[in-house]
Amino acid sequence: MHRVQVTAISDVMMLGPQATRHLHVLRLQAGERVQVFDGQGAHAEAVVFDLHPDVGRATLHLQPDSVGTVRGAETPQPVTLAVALLKGDKLTDVVRAATELGAANIQLLITQHAEARDIGAQKLTRLRRIASEAARQSERSVTPDVLEPVKLSTYQWNGTLLVAHPGSATRITELLTWDAPLTLLSGPEGGLSDTEMQDLQARGAQAITLGPRILRAETAPIAMLGAIAATGV
Amino acid sequence: MHRVQVTAISDVMMLGPQATRHLHVLRLQAGERVQVFDGQGAHAEAVVFDLHPDVGRATLHLQPDSVGTVRGAETPQPVTLAVALLKGDKLTDVVRAATELGAANIQLLITQHAEARDIGAQKLTRLRRIASEAARQSERSVTPDVLEPVKLSTYQWNGTLLVAHPGSATRITELLTWDAPLTLLSGPEGGLSDTEMQDLQARGAQAITLGPRILRAETAPIAMLGAIAATGV
Repeated sequence: MHRVQVTAISDVMMLGPQATRHLHVLRLQAGERVQVFDGQGAHAEAVVFDLHPDVGRATLHLQPDSVGTVRGAETPQPVTLAVALLKGDKLTDVVRAATELGAANIQLLITQHAEARDIGAQKLTRLRRIASEAARQSERSVTPDVLEPVKLSTYQWNGTLLVAHPGSATRITELLTWDAPLTLLSGPEGGLSDTEMQDLQARGAQAITLGPRILRAETAPIAMLGAIAATGV
Repeated sequence: MHRVQVTAISDVMMLGPQATRHLHVLRLQAGERVQVFDGQGAHAEAVVFDLHPDVGRATLHLQPDSVGTVRGAETPQPVTLAVALLKGDKLTDVVRAATELGAANIQLLITQHAEARDIGAQKLTRLRRIASEAARQSERSVTPDVLEPVKLSTYQWNGTLLVAHPGSATRITELLTWDAPLTLLSGPEGGLSDTEMQDLQARGAQAITLGPRILRAETAPIAMLGAIAATGV
């Protein structure tokens, strides 16, 4: 059954242009059933009541008693990927893979050596759409939020913060306990500065290795989340 | 110091058009020093003797007593990534990330549900060039070989074969011993068929999980190698 994300699950659900276009591309018609999910862990079955791709509007009617909550595809504690702003389309690939690999949030960071100093509203909207699409394709019921960039020096995290750092010999599996929310931090192409690393460690962050090779800034976050996905849950 | 790959380390090394262009882009001139590596684990220092980007030829002279062997960036046993042929440019990203994450070989596979049935000579050459560039950028002295596609049904591997399989609950860290060469196998977009999985397991392969979510065919190999890089070496 095809899956479509809705703002909230209710008796009658109106879809906007994007989701309507998606149903249209799938050749769905009135009377057919779809699975809806709200990006927060709830899902249900619904029937397409009407579908107007020309005006970008569709209506779904909830199937009674079909509402459920899915947490099966989620990590034991929420995992946040905190990632430095990267140039060009690199964040697109990171957001897509991070969603597949179970990130609950993606926090964009402004760092000293960052290639990009800010991100436009349009690009942020695009990253959020990519997260939503990737959540659907990877059959997650939670869509990660892509959070507006904050400065690394003032970034506040909850729980455990692990930083990918070339100088570290500590393995991620040595520190992974799942007794608190987890944040995985990955720097920009030029790496974090010594000052930034020292400041993070003074605030309780722990450095981990991703092996003895130099990774590109877009590979490191996927490797970290891959390690979590393959070993942690 | 800039790094450049040579066919073999010797007293006088002639570079072809591609490596010459690389030195030219780096604005290197006669008399400057570079690090050379042979893609097999040996490295040395050399001096640029002459550089002719117009004819695509350069000559390097070896610095005496500088030849060494680097294995520091390599895994304890060679890791082969065996990956199904994928459509479009997806293999490019896989080869690049796999090289960064320490793969010693990349074996292309023809599988039942593969999106592509073969790969052209030009595309194979391109993948090999990408592996060479990624080896240089990740400061490896070994360049993975990208091996011509073979049918999965007749594929012979050495040592341990671990297959990413959505149905498995076994974690990669439970099976990783480094007492033999390791092959990590990842299927095509449509997954391996039941017959293929059964055949592999009958031949000694073990299935591992990459978490409870559905991964794209290009994300799974990076997640597997990321897990190895973060936990194994």
